[in-house]
Amino acid sequence: MDAIVALAKRRGFVFQSSEIYGGFNGFFDYGPLGAELKKNIRDCWWDDMVRRRDDIVGVETSIIMHPKVWEASGHVAGFTDPLVDCKVSNQRYRADQLFFAKVGVHPEPIEFTQADEATRTEYFEHLKPRDGRKRVVEPSARVLEIVAAFRREEEAAAQAETVSGDGIGYVSALENERTVAALREKAELLKRKVGARGILVVAKARDLTEATAEEVPLIPSPATGNPGDLTPARSFNMMFQTNVGAMTDASSVAYLRPETAQGMFVDFKNVVDTGRVKLPFGIAQIGKSFRNEITPRNFIFRSREFEQMEMEYFISEDADWATCHQEWIEWCRQWLLSIGLPDSHLSLYAHPKEKLAFYSKGTVDIMFQYPFGVQELWGIAARGDYDLKQHATASGKPMEYFDEAAKKKFVPHVIEPAVGVDRIFLAVLCAGYAEEDVTDDKGNVEKRTVLRLSPRLAPVKVAVLPLLKNKEALVGRAQELHAKLKRKYAVFYDEAGAIGRRYRRQDEIGTPWCVTIDFETIEKDGSFTLRDRDSMTQRRIHEAELFALLDEKVY
Amino acid sequence: MDAIVALAKRRGFVFQSSEIYGGFNGFFDYGPLGAELKKNIRDCWWDDMVRRRDDIVGVETSIIMHPKVWEASGHVAGFTDPLVDCKVSNQRYRADQLFFAKVGVHPEPIEFTQADEATRTEYFEHLKPRDGRKRVVEPSARVLEIVAAFRREEEAAAQAETVSGDGIGYVSALENERTVAALREKAELLKRKVGARGILVVAKARDLTEATAEEVPLIPSPATGNPGDLTPARSFNMMFQTNVGAMTDASSVAYLRPETAQGMFVDFKNVVDTGRVKLPFGIAQIGKSFRNEITPRNFIFRSREFEQMEMEYFISEDADWATCHQEWIEWCRQWLLSIGLPDSHLSLYAHPKEKLAFYSKGTVDIMFQYPFGVQELWGIAARGDYDLKQHATASGKPMEYFDEAAKKKFVPHVIEPAVGVDRIFLAVLCAGYAEEDVTDDKGNVEKRTVLRLSPRLAPVKVAVLPLLKNKEALVGRAQELHAKLKRKYAVFYDEAGAIGRRYRRQDEIGTPWCVTIDFETIEKDGSFTLRDRDSMTQRRIHEAELFALLDEKVY
Repeated sequence: MDAIVALAKRRGFVFQSSEIYGGFNGFFDYGPLGAELKKNIRDCWWDDMVRRRDDIVGVETSIIMHPKVWEASGHVAGFTDPLVDCKVSNQRYRADQLFFAKVGVHPEPIEFTQADEATRTEYFEHLKPRDGRKRVVEPSARVLEIVAAFRREEEAAAQAETVSGDGIGYVSALENERTVAALREKAELLKRKVGARGILVVAKARDLTEATAEEVPLIPSPATGNPGDLTPARSFNMMFQTNVGAMTDASSVAYLRPETAQGMFVDFKNVVDTGRVKLPFGIAQIGKSFRNEITPRNFIFRSREFEQMEMEYFISEDADWATCHQEWIEWCRQWLLSIGLPDSHLSLYAHPKEKLAFYSKGTVDIMFQYPFGVQELWGIAARGDYDLKQHATASGKPMEYFDEAAKKKFVPHVIEPAVGVDRIFLAVLCAGYAEEDVTDDKGNVEKRTVLRLSPRLAPVKVAVLPLLKNKEALVGRAQELHAKLKRKYAVFYDEAGAIGRRYRRQDEIGTPWCVTIDFETIEKDGSFTLRDRDSMTQRRIHEAELFALLDEKVY
Repeated sequence: MDAIVALAKRRGFVFQSSEIYGGFNGFFDYGPLGAELKKNIRDCWWDDMVRRRDDIVGVETSIIMHPKVWEASGHVAGFTDPLVDCKVSNQRYRADQLFFAKVGVHPEPIEFTQADEATRTEYFEHLKPRDGRKRVVEPSARVLEIVAAFRREEEAAAQAETVSGDGIGYVSALENERTVAALREKAELLKRKVGARGILVVAKARDLTEATAEEVPLIPSPATGNPGDLTPARSFNMMFQTNVGAMTDASSVAYLRPETAQGMFVDFKNVVDTGRVKLPFGIAQIGKSFRNEITPRNFIFRSREFEQMEMEYFISEDADWATCHQEWIEWCRQWLLSIGLPDSHLSLYAHPKEKLAFYSKGTVDIMFQYPFGVQELWGIAARGDYDLKQHATASGKPMEYFDEAAKKKFVPHVIEPAVGVDRIFLAVLCAGYAEEDVTDDKGNVEKRTVLRLSPRLAPVKVAVLPLLKNKEALVGRAQELHAKLKRKYAVFYDEAGAIGRRYRRQDEIGTPWCVTIDFETIEKDGSFTLRDRDSMTQRRIHEAELFALLDEKVY
C-alpha cells in the first residue's frame, strides 16, 4: 500500500488536498494523470451504463437539494455515527471504534504461608519462561500440582468473557489491528498500578456504544488515560450542513448530499414525463457526495468528499426482483472485469437478512481485495418501493407509473447498483501495480515498476517516441503521428533520454503501448515498433493497424 | 426566453432542483438530454484544452479545501456582497440592487389668487393631455405664458440630480427594467399622501450602498413601505460555510469553493514536481463551485451551484503577457465558434483600468447576447503573480519555478480563462432555438421548433428510423445499424409514429441527422436516407459514408 501511495504522489495521480497548508484530513486532489484516470473511469461507466443501453438515461442533479429531501429519505434522522467526546482533551472518537474492557483478578489457586518459602521460590522459578533452556532443578510434585492449578486458572481467565464483581477497573483502546493486545497491555499496567495480586482477567472487548450508563464514567479516555473524562455515546449526523440564502438560522439549513441516489428518486416523475422511458428503465448519475466521516482512512478509500456512480433501475411491482437483482450483480462484475480488475480479487458478500433495513429485499456487495483487506467496492441493493413512497408521502406528489400494457398505476420497485469512482480508482491502482525483475539484452537484471491499467482506463494510450531526438526526420515523423493520434486519443510525445528509460517511464504510469519511430520507419516501409507494456515484446506495425488496435481496445 | 425555459423543461434538459418540494431557489437539475449536453460541453473543452494540447495538464481538486486557502486568496475577507435587512419583515436585499431616491417639490411658477379663478381653470384645462384632439378653446396669452414657465420648471425638475433641503421624503424600489419608473410612481403616491403641492422632483436613483448614515432611516423598506425598517448595508460573505469533523465551532469552519482556480494555484508545486511540465504551461480543471447568491436569476445563468471550466496558464515573469492574453482571448472565441455559437452574438468587453484589482494587468470578457441582455460568458484575466505569491506567503512554501534556460528562479505570472458550463449551456440553447414556418410537400405550412446544436454538442448525434415499424426487414436493418453506431456515438432508435413527426421530435432536441431505413435500403444497394436537421434536405448515403461524416463532425 505504501508503494502505491508513493507512486500516486510521485507521478501525479493523487495529492493530499491543500498540501502546502499541511493537508486537510479526508480530502484529496487528483493530479494530471489521476484526473485523466478518473475521467476515464467515469466515461467508461457512462458509455456502458447510459449511452450504449436503450433502457437507461442519465441525469445530473444538484449537490445541495431542498432539505425536505433528506427528511423524507431518512438521512436527517438516521444517517448518523455514534460519537464520544473526551471532555478534557476535546478529542472526539467514533464510539464504535473505541473499545474498552473491564479488568479483574482471580485469586491465585494457592496461598503461600511464610513457612512455605522454599516452595514459593521454586514455584515462581518454575513459572518463569525459559526460552527452551533446560531447568537445573526439577520441580517437586507439590509445585507441579500448584502450577497445573495456576495454568488452569490462567486459561479460564483468558477465556473469561466477563469480570465478576467490581474488578480493578477498565481499560480502553482505539480500534486497529492490535486492539485486543493493547487492552491486555494496559490491563497489566493497571494491575501493577493498583498493586493487585492474582491472575489477570480481561473481559471481552466491547465498543463504547455497548457501555452501560454506569460503565461510561469508569472507562479511561484514550487521550488522558483517566476515567471520568468520556461522555456517553451520542448520534452524530454525517451530513455536512450549510445555510442557503442570507439568513443563518434553522430556516436556511441545507445539506451537502451524502449520496447521489435521492436525485434520481426526486426527479423520477420529471424523467417519466419527459424522457420517453418505459418500465423497466434506469436513471443513472455520476457526481460528488460528501460525508463528514469522523475517521477518514485507507487513503482515498474512505474520504469525506468522494464521487459516486449510481443507477436506479425501476421495475414493475410484479417483476421478479430477485432475477433482476442477480442480473445487475453480474453486469457490475462483468463491467469491473472489462476495465481490467482481476476476477481473483473480486468476491460477493450478501448482507445477512437480519441486518437489512425493513424495506430492503436484499443487498449484495461486490468486494475487492485491497492491500488493507477485503472491502466493499460496489453495493447492489434491492430497495423495493421504499424511496419513491417516502417522497410521495412527504411531498404530496404521486410517484406512480402508469403501465399501458397492464392498464394500471403503481409505484415501481428499484434495484440500485452504487459504486464509488475513488474506490475503483484505488482498486485499479492496487491490482495493476507490480514491481518486477526484468533481464535486459545484456543479461542485466533490473527492477521495473509497472502499472497494468486496462487500455480503456490508462491516462495515456500510446507514447510516441522518436528513436533519437537529434535526427530531424525521426522527430518530424514522430510529431506527425503524435498529432494525428491526438485528435482521438490521449497520447504522449517523449524524446528525452534512452529509449529503455522512456519505456520505463511509460510502464510506471500504465501506458499500454509505446511506438518508436526508427530508421526503418523513415527509410523502409513506414512501419514502426510497437512495444507492449505487459509482455514487453516488440513488433513492427503500420499506422492503419495501430488505429485499428486502438479502435478495438479503447472504447 | 420563456420558450427556451419551457422547452428545457418539456424535453428534459433542465428541471428545477427538488421540484416536488416546490423547488429550491438557485439550484437546478439536468435531465436526460441536459446531462448529455452538459457532458458534451465538458468533454469538448477538456479534449481541446487538455488532451489535444501538449502544454496543458488537468487536475481535479477537492471542493472543500483547507480554510487557509480562502484566507490567502482573499475570499474570506473580500468575497462579499453588500446586504440590507428589513427589520420588520426579515426580508434581505442586495444593497446594490435596492435603489432609492429623495423626493421633493418645486413651487409652481405662479400662485393663483381667488380672483384669478377663470385663468386657473383654463390653465389646468390646458395642462391635461389631449391625445391629439384639437382644443375647443384656444388658451389666452396669459395662460400660455404660465404654461411655458411651468414646462421649464418641470423640465428642470426632471433633470434635477438632487433635491435640496429636506424634500418630502424618500422612495425605494428593487432593481429591474423599470426601476426608475417605479420610483417616480412611488414619488407621485408620496406627494399625494403628504398632500404636497408643486412640481414633483425625484433625485437621481442611488443604490443602498451609496446611502449616508442619515439617509438610511428615511428610506422605506420595499417590504413594508415604511421608513426606518432597513438596516445599513453590511458585507455578506458569499461562500457557503460548513464544519468539517465532529466539532461545530470556529476551529472546524470550512468553505465550499466559490471558484475552482485556487485548486490550481495550491497544487502548482505538486504539478511542477510531478507533471514534467515546462513554462509556459497551463493547469486546467472542470468542477462544481458554489456561491450563496442573494438573488439568483436568469434561469441557469446565475445560480448558487454551478460548474466551472478554468485554466491557469503560467508564463515567465519576463514573458509578453499582453500578447499571451490576446492569444487566449482569441483561443476562447474560436472555441466558442467551434461548438456552434454564432459570431454575431459574441463581443468583447475590456474592464476599465480603474476598476481592476491592484494586481490585475487586464481582464477581457467575451460577452454573449442572451435574450435578457448582453452578459459575461468567459472572462480572460491577466492576474500577474498575485495568487502564487499570496499562497507562498500564507503557507511559507516557495511557489517558484526554476527556469533551466535562463538559470533563474521566479514566481510565474498567469493568464486565466474562466468560463461556466451552465452559461455555455444556456448560450447554445438560446442561439440554437428557433421556431420556423415550414412548407411540406403538399404545400401545407406548419410550425417546427428546431434546436440548432453543433454536432459536437448535440445529445443525440443520429436518430435511426425504420420507415415502417411493422416490416421486420426494415426494423432489423435499423436495429443493426443502431447497435453499430451506439458503440461510438450517442444515437437514438425510434419507430413510433409518422416519419415526419419523428423528424420533428429530433429537430426539437437538436439531433443533427436522421437516417431512415426504407425499402431501397433492403431491396437495392443498402443505402439509406440521411436527413439534415438544418437544411431539411435528404440524400442517399452508405454506412461507411455515415461513419466518415460522424468521424469528421463529432470530435
